[in-house]
Amino acid sequence: MQLEKYTIDELNHQQAKKHQWRFNGVAADISNIDDVLKKLGVFNIAIPSWALGTGGTRFGRFSGGGEPRSLEEKIEDVGLIHALNKSSNAISLHIPWDIPKNAVAIKALAAQHGLHFDAVNSNTFQDQKDQKLSYKFGSLHHIDKAVRKQAIEHNIEVIKYGRQLESKAISVWLSDGSNFPGQLNFRKAFQNTLESLEEIYAALPDDWKIWVEYKPYEPNFYSTTIGDWGQSYLLANKLGAKASTLVDLGHHLQGTNIEQIVSLLLMEGKLAGFHFNDSKYGDDDLTVGSINPYQLFLIFNELVEGMDAKGMDHATSIGWMIDASHNVKDPIEDLLQSVQAIKIAYAQALLVDKTALVTAQNNNDVTLAQEILQQAYRTDVRPLVAEASLRNGGTLDPIGAFRKLNIRGNLIKERGLKTVATGL
Amino acid sequence: MQLEKYTIDELNHQQAKKHQWRFNGVAADISNIDDVLKKLGVFNIAIPSWALGTGGTRFGRFSGGGEPRSLEEKIEDVGLIHALNKSSNAISLHIPWDIPKNAVAIKALAAQHGLHFDAVNSNTFQDQKDQKLSYKFGSLHHIDKAVRKQAIEHNIEVIKYGRQLESKAISVWLSDGSNFPGQLNFRKAFQNTLESLEEIYAALPDDWKIWVEYKPYEPNFYSTTIGDWGQSYLLANKLGAKASTLVDLGHHLQGTNIEQIVSLLLMEGKLAGFHFNDSKYGDDDLTVGSINPYQLFLIFNELVEGMDAKGMDHATSIGWMIDASHNVKDPIEDLLQSVQAIKIAYAQALLVDKTALVTAQNNNDVTLAQEILQQAYRTDVRPLVAEASLRNGGTLDPIGAFRKLNIRGNLIKERGLKTVATGL
Amino acid sequence: MQLEKYTIDELNHQQAKKHQWRFNGVAADISNIDDVLKKLGVFNIAIPSWALGTGGTRFGRFSGGGEPRSLEEKIEDVGLIHALNKSSNAISLHIPWDIPKNAVAIKALAAQHGLHFDAVNSNTFQDQKDQKLSYKFGSLHHIDKAVRKQAIEHNIEVIKYGRQLESKAISVWLSDGSNFPGQLNFRKAFQNTLESLEEIYAALPDDWKIWVEYKPYEPNFYSTTIGDWGQSYLLANKLGAKASTLVDLGHHLQGTNIEQIVSLLLMEGKLAGFHFNDSKYGDDDLTVGSINPYQLFLIFNELVEGMDAKGMDHATSIGWMIDASHNVKDPIEDLLQSVQAIKIAYAQALLVDKTALVTAQNNNDVTLAQEILQQAYRTDVRPLVAEASLRNGGTLDPIGAFRKLNIRGNLIKERGLKTVATGL
Amino acid sequence: MQLEKYTIDELNHQQAKKHQWRFNGVAADISNIDDVLKKLGVFNIAIPSWALGTGGTRFGRFSGGGEPRSLEEKIEDVGLIHALNKSSNAISLHIPWDIPKNAVAIKALAAQHGLHFDAVNSNTFQDQKDQKLSYKFGSLHHIDKAVRKQAIEHNIEVIKYGRQLESKAISVWLSDGSNFPGQLNFRKAFQNTLESLEEIYAALPDDWKIWVEYKPYEPNFYSTTIGDWGQSYLLANKLGAKASTLVDLGHHLQGTNIEQIVSLLLMEGKLAGFHFNDSKYGDDDLTVGSINPYQLFLIFNELVEGMDAKGMDHATSIGWMIDASHNVKDPIEDLLQSVQAIKIAYAQALLVDKTALVTAQNNNDVTLAQEILQQAYRTDVRPLVAEASLRNGGTLDPIGAFRKLNIRGNLIKERGLKTVATGL
Repeated sequence: MQLEKYTIDELNHQQAKKHQWRFNGVAADISNIDDVLKKLGVFNIAIPSWALGTGGTRFGRFSGGGEPRSLEEKIEDVGLIHALNKSSNAISLHIPWDIPKNAVAIKALAAQHGLHFDAVNSNTFQDQKDQKLSYKFGSLHHIDKAVRKQAIEHNIEVIKYGRQLESKAISVWLSDGSNFPGQLNFRKAFQNTLESLEEIYAALPDDWKIWVEYKPYEPNFYSTTIGDWGQSYLLANKLGAKASTLVDLGHHLQGTNIEQIVSLLLMEGKLAGFHFNDSKYGDDDLTVGSINPYQLFLIFNELVEGMDAKGMDHATSIGWMIDASHNVKDPIEDLLQSVQAIKIAYAQALLVDKTALVTAQNNNDVTLAQEILQQAYRTDVRPLVAEASLRNGGTLDPIGAFRKLNIRGNLIKERGLKTVATGL
Repeated sequence: MQLEKYTIDELNHQQAKKHQWRFNGVAADISNIDDVLKKLGVFNIAIPSWALGTGGTRFGRFSGGGEPRSLEEKIEDVGLIHALNKSSNAISLHIPWDIPKNAVAIKALAAQHGLHFDAVNSNTFQDQKDQKLSYKFGSLHHIDKAVRKQAIEHNIEVIKYGRQLESKAISVWLSDGSNFPGQLNFRKAFQNTLESLEEIYAALPDDWKIWVEYKPYEPNFYSTTIGDWGQSYLLANKLGAKASTLVDLGHHLQGTNIEQIVSLLLMEGKLAGFHFNDSKYGDDDLTVGSINPYQLFLIFNELVEGMDAKGMDHATSIGWMIDASHNVKDPIEDLLQSVQAIKIAYAQALLVDKTALVTAQNNNDVTLAQEILQQAYRTDVRPLVAEASLRNGGTLDPIGAFRKLNIRGNLIKERGLKTVATGL
Repeated sequence: MQLEKYTIDELNHQQAKKHQWRFNGVAADISNIDDVLKKLGVFNIAIPSWALGTGGTRFGRFSGGGEPRSLEEKIEDVGLIHALNKSSNAISLHIPWDIPKNAVAIKALAAQHGLHFDAVNSNTFQDQKDQKLSYKFGSLHHIDKAVRKQAIEHNIEVIKYGRQLESKAISVWLSDGSNFPGQLNFRKAFQNTLESLEEIYAALPDDWKIWVEYKPYEPNFYSTTIGDWGQSYLLANKLGAKASTLVDLGHHLQGTNIEQIVSLLLMEGKLAGFHFNDSKYGDDDLTVGSINPYQLFLIFNELVEGMDAKGMDHATSIGWMIDASHNVKDPIEDLLQSVQAIKIAYAQALLVDKTALVTAQNNNDVTLAQEILQQAYRTDVRPLVAEASLRNGGTLDPIGAFRKLNIRGNLIKERGLKTVATGL
Repeated sequence: MQLEKYTIDELNHQQAKKHQWRFNGVAADISNIDDVLKKLGVFNIAIPSWALGTGGTRFGRFSGGGEPRSLEEKIEDVGLIHALNKSSNAISLHIPWDIPKNAVAIKALAAQHGLHFDAVNSNTFQDQKDQKLSYKFGSLHHIDKAVRKQAIEHNIEVIKYGRQLESKAISVWLSDGSNFPGQLNFRKAFQNTLESLEEIYAALPDDWKIWVEYKPYEPNFYSTTIGDWGQSYLLANKLGAKASTLVDLGHHLQGTNIEQIVSLLLMEGKLAGFHFNDSKYGDDDLTVGSINPYQLFLIFNELVEGMDAKGMDHATSIGWMIDASHNVKDPIEDLLQSVQAIKIAYAQALLVDKTALVTAQNNNDVTLAQEILQQAYRTDVRPLVAEASLRNGGTLDPIGAFRKLNIRGNLIKERGLKTVATGL
């Protein structure tokens, strides 16, 4: 299923007047409106291939209907999302769930939907059928060299698939850790991980990056071998210039000041990018912006400030990706909400009056600094996001369009009610 | 110092055109605009007498200038706040920091500023000079009947002062708890607390309420005898109809769903009211809405829904008060920001399309339910809050006015640079 | 597989001398040694039927070998545990995973192993094959009366199975909650839950109890309808005398003082019992005593004190059960470790010098109160636990025995290497 | 007041028989008993000068009697502690609270008590009387170069005092941070801190170290500029070989795996040492080992393993210090309890069967690894700690001795009931 331009135009046409009026209302107060719209227009967030099906927990999974049954159908879903919001022009594959059998054909299909391939992701947190050695006790950190070797080779294979699709980065998340005191020697586990990553690093093409993710707990509940940003940074630093630290918003202990970490990683040139989601407790993988949208804005505020300070291009210098689990929402709707939330936060951050903020900070005028941030945050930037989408040929209201066009209904007709996509 | 009407009118006049244009922009989309403005207009949040000076931590306190040196000057400060925002028509006293020596004169002074007296607060978490028995090991829960008696009498005395000022409630926060396992028998501590509260309850005038606050930790770091809403509820329930549970937003473990607690307390008829502040870690006592404004909105969403379901009047059925500590901001500015944040959250909650929300909930349409809440939340309601203030004779922009009028400068001139108000 | 008496005797004989020497060393300092041994001797902790297979997380499950393939084999496993430690004389069934097809035969089999049936557990957190209505959006709290009805009937059916096996309680854990703000009306969800529980309560036999569990989050990550002890207590109180609150140690926000909750529930006569496990982050379901054994001791200290104050029999007045997930350990070994940890904590609690503690508390002698608790805690009570096991015909060292007898090896021979038990 | 040898001998004599019997019981099972006793015998934990008075919170402080009124009396108190436990042979000074007016005399006094001077501590988290510029908005991270300069000079002055006393390290804890989003530019704050530390580093004598402490929050509640181990490590790494990271046990977000951090810092050669205390919530500064003694043991387990792997001397390679606040206990008793808890944890760690543990880890035998750790932990090592104290001329039971000798009573007689020591 692919959306036609006239379908989208027609929908937008119905809402055009109202939109124009709202847009004018907001835009009038914004001095850098063109710059904001331009930046919003080129900003894209990649969709992970494993996020197109209903997610679940250890307690169960309640699938919806019309889930993609193949990599081709996943690309089709991302194509639909991108057609609606014009902000999701890339897909991030997970190997081995999504091994492209025919890379040329897959690339052609993606291109047809205006998509390219973002970072590829390896998986050593599960055992695959017919896998020789088990990852029950970890992979790159494993006490047994043979298991490490198997995991290293898997990562190198993932890079191989990625090259075929013109990806430029591999994203490594390790669940390696321990459930009980005594299970691991932390130092050896760390050193084994480093050695393993060094072998993968050695296999990286010249123009590739390796993104090292961290997470404090789950699925291991006593220690995780790459447990926080400091541990990831330590590894990335030892590995070299192509290695950097990937921030998943849900991978922090409660109370962590994530925006500060983002700022420091940017400062050190070691911020790889993001896995976006939201959470109230742990790695809850909820829709971006559904629990604490102000925190999301504060993160984007650091990103805009920090990237500008380094002359980095917002859209392309680091990786932008969603990583959420859609347990009670339609996966496509959930992703559309997430992308909207990200663009809203980005737009708000672009509205921050930096000159005034620097002055307030120089004066330790804390009240005013807060007023400046909240002036941007409280502005209703939805018309700006809509306008940027409109100018790119997307819809003014992606979720509304998804529903009006009965896209899920059509997918169910095509694919059936009982399909289950690969993923968690 | 007291603000003249023409001063405020002049300030508003300068901003009138811009305000009108913004207000019209937002109001056009709101069907129940009159109702919203009316409700905002009568909504007031009490200012605690101890919040008018610079706060501190155990590590130190960095006072500003021009802090009120007496109860009279505290009333003057609240009068200034109320003149600016027309939403702070009450002051909440803390005994023994603010014992009114001449209740008649104090009441007259308050009335002159358009103020009345909200709940009175007792203090058994510190020893006062010349106090006979120490609260080092607690007050109403104390193992020693004599200490309990002293604390009970103090509370009854607080009620006496409150009656003189026409307060209608006593707010009881106990720091009683323990720092180490073994220090306390939890059961006996609870039962002593109950007995003590029963004696205070017996001394309540007919038209009074007693509000029982809870807090998980600080200043005790192992247990607190009224540690969570369940423990407060248990006490309030045993005490009777005049007793209910006071919610301080900072008094929760990380991750607590406060809005759910609010909803259930309302359901049970046991929600006394609020101490508003914001926090990232514990009882940080930060400006309301400075850390997680969406949570504040969600709390107000429950309040509006729950009060409407019971036919309760929003403005008067429960207690609304700020309880924050202003360590790095001008206390008056901090309070003005807090009141604005509360009114913004309340306005957003009033905009929620309840009918649509109920339908979405009935359909388990989780995506739509989120859209409905965020439609209200993302609306820029500041022009509504400003309009409500304007109609009441307040300023369009209270903090801006405070600065333009150089109020702090004037207070410093009057009171001096090295004044320190009583409080924490 | 069933252990013979002589096998155990032989093992014990080898260690007898060393044990006797150690036991004498510790016992010499304990005035109430006979009482302690007697109490330890009659203390049993039930084993849940779902804990005999390898557990997992949403990220994967790495099964071991020789897992029980049927209810009969699960009973056999519990029989082995009980033969080794003489402290696990009951099994707690989970319906529908363990529906007894022939209750008479099942009871006979259990009796043959010296086992009876503890509380039965219902399951409305997953959809079963061919289930009419889905629990995707909850069960007893569901907005749709038909779903609630289905869940009520399931619970009543669970009671029916329990009666056949002479269980005396049903344990209800609901995952009902919401992932996003707006998804639920908290009040209606609570009231629906109450109504549903009332219908189940009405179906309880005269001599039965209903145990209402609480949990703050997972599998729902915004709200849980029975989220804390206060909410469970509120329900149990409204239901009546047969209803009480079940405490799962992992079901608390970080920092919760669980021992205080235990004390208060005992005080109110509303403590149903325990699901034991340990955790560092959330509901990690780790081996009891593996992360914070002092907390476990403090809980038992409250239990012993509180039950004694009410004249309750330790062994039988409330429910004792393990609820853990064995992701990286042999399930039987994990359960043996858990039971040992519980008995150690119980033994330590029995050693607390209550008279001295009360005196210290009356004097606010905090240092001494800590010394008294730690005097008991730091005592090496393992010889007491071993002696109690020995006197009951169990082994001195259950895990050592499990390994020496190569029990898992034998089970794998019997059942195969690729068996997977039902459960999480 | 100074304890005489015969006083201590007499006390020990009374308990000698019982002690010997207990010691023999435990020692019989320990193969490396001589090594353990030797290591315990040379292990000392420094006492901070600010910990000899009653601590408090922002809500109040309830002083006891007989608190030291001068540096001399503080030294006397540490002398008493050391006389009792023979494990506290150093004092750590806090400037400006304890500026030694006559260094020669102070050193002589300390030597008379068998004490020397551990790390000196600077204080830029409070304003001192007559201080030119305020630290309200931070010190080494301050936006204003003049404030940074003042703070740098203070630190250099602290080093000067330390040199006079033959300290060999300066310990820097900065409260620098922010209370509100927008208040700080994180990057600039970090870079200012680095520059400031570089100036202090440049002033370090050749044989000195600088220890950089971290803390997530309090007294700032939004961000702390050196907020976690990663940020401290980053600074220490940029500074050079003399800089390393100091771990205060209470300075972590809930759930942090502190022992893993300790292991990695040791691996990197960047572990400066410890500020010991315990906590349930945040920086509660409770008696060491009073809340989670197993965690303390796990930390020592990493220390012993990691130091042995590097051939580091346990007693002298890193800094050992207590940093607690004694709100409801006698400060000296609290410190004695803390030192005992540390020695117990250290002794337990020395008992871990490393060979067996490595084998278990190599086999991923998680059950056994736990058994090995808990075998050491559950051993009652108090007789070993007592024996080590006895052999050094200390008491078998320091707290008991403190009480029997009525030391506090004597101090009150000497110093009065209403003394208040400097500190928090």
